[in-house]
Amino acid sequence: MEENDNARDIDRMLQFSDAIFAFAITLLVVTIDIPKIPPELADKQLQGALLGLWPQFESYLISFIVIGSFWVAHHQRFRHLRRYDRIFIWLNLFCLMFISLLPFSTNLMGDYNAVQIVTIIYSLNMFFIGLLFSLLWWYATYKRRLIDEHLSKERITESRRLSIAIPIIFAISIGLSFFYLPLARYVWLLALPLVFFLLRK
Amino acid sequence: MEENDNARDIDRMLQFSDAIFAFAITLLVVTIDIPKIPPELADKQLQGALLGLWPQFESYLISFIVIGSFWVAHHQRFRHLRRYDRIFIWLNLFCLMFISLLPFSTNLMGDYNAVQIVTIIYSLNMFFIGLLFSLLWWYATYKRRLIDEHLSKERITESRRLSIAIPIIFAISIGLSFFYLPLARYVWLLALPLVFFLLRK
Amino acid sequence: MEENDNARDIDRMLQFSDAIFAFAITLLVVTIDIPKIPPELADKQLQGALLGLWPQFESYLISFIVIGSFWVAHHQRFRHLRRYDRIFIWLNLFCLMFISLLPFSTNLMGDYNAVQIVTIIYSLNMFFIGLLFSLLWWYATYKRRLIDEHLSKERITESRRLSIAIPIIFAISIGLSFFYLPLARYVWLLALPLVFFLLRK
Amino acid sequence: MEENDNARDIDRMLQFSDAIFAFAITLLVVTIDIPKIPPELADKQLQGALLGLWPQFESYLISFIVIGSFWVAHHQRFRHLRRYDRIFIWLNLFCLMFISLLPFSTNLMGDYNAVQIVTIIYSLNMFFIGLLFSLLWWYATYKRRLIDEHLSKERITESRRLSIAIPIIFAISIGLSFFYLPLARYVWLLALPLVFFLLRK
Repeated sequence: MEENDNARDIDRMLQFSDAIFAFAITLLVVTIDIPKIPPELADKQLQGALLGLWPQFESYLISFIVIGSFWVAHHQRFRHLRRYDRIFIWLNLFCLMFISLLPFSTNLMGDYNAVQIVTIIYSLNMFFIGLLFSLLWWYATYKRRLIDEHLSKERITESRRLSIAIPIIFAISIGLSFFYLPLARYVWLLALPLVFFLLRK
Repeated sequence: MEENDNARDIDRMLQFSDAIFAFAITLLVVTIDIPKIPPELADKQLQGALLGLWPQFESYLISFIVIGSFWVAHHQRFRHLRRYDRIFIWLNLFCLMFISLLPFSTNLMGDYNAVQIVTIIYSLNMFFIGLLFSLLWWYATYKRRLIDEHLSKERITESRRLSIAIPIIFAISIGLSFFYLPLARYVWLLALPLVFFLLRK
Repeated sequence: MEENDNARDIDRMLQFSDAIFAFAITLLVVTIDIPKIPPELADKQLQGALLGLWPQFESYLISFIVIGSFWVAHHQRFRHLRRYDRIFIWLNLFCLMFISLLPFSTNLMGDYNAVQIVTIIYSLNMFFIGLLFSLLWWYATYKRRLIDEHLSKERITESRRLSIAIPIIFAISIGLSFFYLPLARYVWLLALPLVFFLLRK
Repeated sequence: MEENDNARDIDRMLQFSDAIFAFAITLLVVTIDIPKIPPELADKQLQGALLGLWPQFESYLISFIVIGSFWVAHHQRFRHLRRYDRIFIWLNLFCLMFISLLPFSTNLMGDYNAVQIVTIIYSLNMFFIGLLFSLLWWYATYKRRLIDEHLSKERITESRRLSIAIPIIFAISIGLSFFYLPLARYVWLLALPLVFFLLRK
């Protein structure tokens, strides 16, 4: 496949990406379990069972914000896309593959949030989303081949630098999980404001 | 991200919102359980088991109408959107987050409709959808920054007032659940005609 | 809400409908169970377990064709839509509600295809899809209010008549289920060629 | 239904196809099981349980690449579509039906990858996707009835030949499964580079 600069085809590809984002973000809800309690005990035990779902809600919330942030970033960046090729399409698909995997990692995190391997899997999932997204942006902006020529050089340089910050944060989080598990998660709180900042430019 | 008034980008954002509405509304069906009965007893016991699903159908129907109503409201209101910014996008995403949570609350309601905490969770879910939707509309219409300038001042004032009625009704429902549980649910029946009325203008 | 003849809004509404059709048709796959067999017995027992899934595949196939047919019909009919109003939007949503319910009925049918009440539920589901679709078309073509004025009177008359044939067939199927259950299902085979014919004009 | 060359209708049909591709690819994630381990044993047993999920990840990855490849092929081929008819719409729907079935076959493959019948079912699923896709392309390009007249005769001939290679590979895989099971799977590795090559032209 040679380069394709047909506006209708670009829109179709971006809509396909949006549909996967939208579906993955909506599918997150199935990671929250419904407590199974016999009806006659529900009055007494349900409140406790629902409070026990807190880690699942927390994971749901974080993953919703992460997918949301990446969607906003995707939306912001690739509205400057003016053509695409086969490599772009496959980098994008692999980035979407890790977005699609997030309901699995979120489910795991909600069920076993105190286990180190689970924190690592969750961070790895985030890391790969961030890495592939960063690669995608570098590829698209390399010699400004695939993007709008009106995008200034300064904005490209800045956005590229910021885009590699995300996978770095999650790589640090994996390292920290070997020392003190809760610390690994606090690093994510650092990632979110950064995503916001990243989306600014 | 500065303000964006590109029609194609606005359409992409609204389509992303529509996709989440569409998935959440279709995903509701998984909240209705399939009875598990051994084949040899199915003839005798299935009818009873299916009748026992009634509360789940009721919750399904209410949630379908609620998501449907908010979609219609979103569709009606934001076709006047002419530009958007970062705050709008995130308010919209958080509103969609509570839409996406509705299959969970609906499932809970279908399984334990006689438990007060469940009625409160369901009402809270609705309350937050209504609140964020209202905030979104106030934000968009504030000094008519994000919307079509042809929308008359009277319609804006009226639609704003109506939009805060929905979260107020669900707040009242939560309060009533402490006195008499079925009453909490009858208040919802009040909300639905209001939604219809709200969509009129 | 007064009548809306904005082409972009009509497209958004039809796209929302398409998304629900697409999601419901894809969600059908979860109605086919994965056999749960211990690994050491899989070689011997899996083939039998998979053959036992046949009724589920049959239900999957029929429901896929039914949703597919209604999507084709929706696509064919409503490309002539030139404006819509509140009643149209809600008739359309209720029609989509019964489309969304089909994964439930299909699941039930696949698990208990020999039980009369299940055949009735499945037929009722189809009946309501057909009825609401027919109502939607009658409403849209009444005095040609909502559709393209170039659609000839003959085609409208013919398409209306055909559209009521579908719910009638499923009503007959419900009646027949009281006499001889397999007969009720053979009537569906009558419905499918009709759908094809219906889509012709 | 006569031939329809309305650009808006063609777009709607392709968007519907894209939506089914997007859901099926995102739904694959539910085929990966979440280990069920009591919290007090999670630290010790979870790592082993997660390693045991490897065959499920493998199946997930292969199916993601397969659906992704067919989406890319569909996207590439049918952007040359200039009109469609009833037969095209139904061939396309049946092709999408086997795409929608892939989450089932993938789930089966992830759970019982050492059982021959499962390899056959998986290969059959792929075979039918490939066969129907090939039929669809032959039908569309027959006398260039449905496609852009600017597409050269050489490219059509070449793309047709390549499109039948995919189902042939999976037919061979089914045959090989009777001799040596792992061999059946290595043949798939042959299919993927071919898909890439197929997409080139």
